[in-house]
Amino acid sequence: MSTSVSPLAPKTFATLPPLRGVRMATAEAGIKYKNRTDVLMMVFDGPAAAAGVFTRSRCSSAPVDFCRRNLAGGVARAVVVNSGNANAFTGRKGRAATELTASSAAAAVGCAESEVFLASTGVIGEPLDATKFSGVLSDMNLRATEDFWFEAAKAIMTTDTYPKVATRTAEIAGVTVTINGIAKGAGMIAPDMATMLSFVVTDAALSAPVLQELLSKGVGPSFNSVTVDSDTSTSDTLMLFATGAAEADGQAPITDVANEALDGFRLALNDLLKDLALQVVRDGEGARKMVAVTVEGAESDAAAKRVALSIANSPLVKTAVAGEDANWGRVVMAVGKSGEVADRDRLEIWFGDVRVAVDGERDPDYSEADASAVMKQQDIAVRVNLNLGSGHATVYTCDLTKEYVEINGDYRS
Amino acid sequence: MSTSVSPLAPKTFATLPPLRGVRMATAEAGIKYKNRTDVLMMVFDGPAAAAGVFTRSRCSSAPVDFCRRNLAGGVARAVVVNSGNANAFTGRKGRAATELTASSAAAAVGCAESEVFLASTGVIGEPLDATKFSGVLSDMNLRATEDFWFEAAKAIMTTDTYPKVATRTAEIAGVTVTINGIAKGAGMIAPDMATMLSFVVTDAALSAPVLQELLSKGVGPSFNSVTVDSDTSTSDTLMLFATGAAEADGQAPITDVANEALDGFRLALNDLLKDLALQVVRDGEGARKMVAVTVEGAESDAAAKRVALSIANSPLVKTAVAGEDANWGRVVMAVGKSGEVADRDRLEIWFGDVRVAVDGERDPDYSEADASAVMKQQDIAVRVNLNLGSGHATVYTCDLTKEYVEINGDYRS
Repeated sequence: MSTSVSPLAPKTFATLPPLRGVRMATAEAGIKYKNRTDVLMMVFDGPAAAAGVFTRSRCSSAPVDFCRRNLAGGVARAVVVNSGNANAFTGRKGRAATELTASSAAAAVGCAESEVFLASTGVIGEPLDATKFSGVLSDMNLRATEDFWFEAAKAIMTTDTYPKVATRTAEIAGVTVTINGIAKGAGMIAPDMATMLSFVVTDAALSAPVLQELLSKGVGPSFNSVTVDSDTSTSDTLMLFATGAAEADGQAPITDVANEALDGFRLALNDLLKDLALQVVRDGEGARKMVAVTVEGAESDAAAKRVALSIANSPLVKTAVAGEDANWGRVVMAVGKSGEVADRDRLEIWFGDVRVAVDGERDPDYSEADASAVMKQQDIAVRVNLNLGSGHATVYTCDLTKEYVEINGDYRS
Repeated sequence: MSTSVSPLAPKTFATLPPLRGVRMATAEAGIKYKNRTDVLMMVFDGPAAAAGVFTRSRCSSAPVDFCRRNLAGGVARAVVVNSGNANAFTGRKGRAATELTASSAAAAVGCAESEVFLASTGVIGEPLDATKFSGVLSDMNLRATEDFWFEAAKAIMTTDTYPKVATRTAEIAGVTVTINGIAKGAGMIAPDMATMLSFVVTDAALSAPVLQELLSKGVGPSFNSVTVDSDTSTSDTLMLFATGAAEADGQAPITDVANEALDGFRLALNDLLKDLALQVVRDGEGARKMVAVTVEGAESDAAAKRVALSIANSPLVKTAVAGEDANWGRVVMAVGKSGEVADRDRLEIWFGDVRVAVDGERDPDYSEADASAVMKQQDIAVRVNLNLGSGHATVYTCDLTKEYVEINGDYRS
């Protein structure tokens, strides 16, 4: 874990209100870290609707496999998350660890194992000794409290330099509901899925299929549009739960995603997902600058996104940003290597408000001083217009610094 | 340009013999660098057969466009290469610069402009003042000499820390022929094509279509199997010329690539291409270690190559190598994110001779000390067996160090 906080960290953290129907507790199980919490347990008072999006890695972790199976039921009573060990590529031992954890959680809470969800983050390939925390789950269930979101976010950190939290409210047919979310992630961050763990809970009364559809759509412009290092983790997990507590205030349960009463909720959820995703980028390992890469004028939105990711993942673009160098030639290179249709002689490129290239060459009005001034900022917008169609997309990344190399050159030791 | 030579540089350089039918000269045109040569001119005494492979970038440079057009003729009389400016993304000015250079070279040598080939390497997006060297081409033609290969390699360097040269001989139906090659490249190196410039010349008598077929096949396991930073340049150019001088020794010209008399030549050429390609990797910007990534047991050779590139391009794998950390969990991650079919529970992974993972988990006999000893070496072999089929591939890369970030964070200034 890093000792200094990212210079891109939020200046203040959102205060997450208690959310009816879910309680949390954390514990120090000593899985890898000393003197800090490394296990989080979320307990739902009743059956909560559950939805999830997971890594597309072909080598997904044991907890991801476990969650995918249980998601078919669509009901959650408990979530157990640990940091320090990803329980990934741990074979039969990994499966046994998930089973032990699930049975311990189910016994503690009094629910079925199919109502338990698990996530692990940390080193890959080391067997996880689940007995370290399975024994404390009963106690955690008794201690769990509603007003515990910030502590929950802290317990799931690995190389994160700050906890990631966000909260929103929305109205559903006149009833105010709340959405709280926490996330972790700093490296091994790329689509798809957004290499990290995130747990979002609402007190709204929504069916599991509605939740799933909202989440699957919402992840596109948020967690699936951020990249730190193009490396996709084996453990990426984003889950959304609905406790349904707002039913007591008169919110009629929603089971149809097309219901217009959901419009405000959808906006609030998408906004919260983007907030959390950007917090992950802003904590990118070694990051000193945040970069928003927008591609317009592509043949389709999907093509725009591929070009944007080619730019955002280019080591040469990212090191140029680190060096505050307005090296738009590398942006041209990254457009060219994306494989998408591009006409060199139609390209326009901006850094911030400074157009640096137009019609296949340097902008005649280009000012090195103006472009350099943009590069000195902490948040940098790179915009490319392919001038071919109407497809557009924005992805978010950070610069590539010596600190990234330092953090990742000796992570295990 | 770097001041210290890569620790992975060859201990000695091959001595390239004069090659009948081609002469070379270099000059200091002051395009970007001071007090070093930055222009190379190759002159063929008679019409040489020509073949080429170029970048797949959609934003290829003006010289690449120019070469592609002229390659249709299949005949070369002159090659002009400059370093310091890539003449890429320079619009109409860029096309004008290629035309001026070609007409100057044609006038100097006394050939058609369609028999001139051009390459430029260096900064992208800056207009190239071709008058700087077009005026010296006549003089260079007069000065050009056969015994000049090493100087030629030096003139085309940019961030290279050493010149790349290789030579081979082969027999074609009892006649000994020679192949000489030079290359440049250190960053912005990735398939396809092998982000660099390379010029290979033989005195064998081979038709242009035969040369092209040999080159297109030979590039697969050589230049298209190396990656420094996954960034594909706009200027990648690999050309192969045959002066045909060996005809004077009785070598009957070969016009059919299936001719068995070519077998020895093909082997020698492929060996030379691989030699040059590996020299490029060993000069990777900031590189301290060379990594050969072999993937076996894939569904196809193409699938194996995609998995191998996913591993070789992973920033987390490359920083782990830099840190001498036997972090095979990141290899699992990179296999998983490749998108190719993989069965976690069949994966085997080796560092050198040390099997670290088998059957979806850590090898029971795994020794951290043995694996660490492998990582301390300068040349590291990473091997993955997917145990699904018989597809295999090897790609070559280097580690990702703080020096890479340093070199690329301030390249333009």
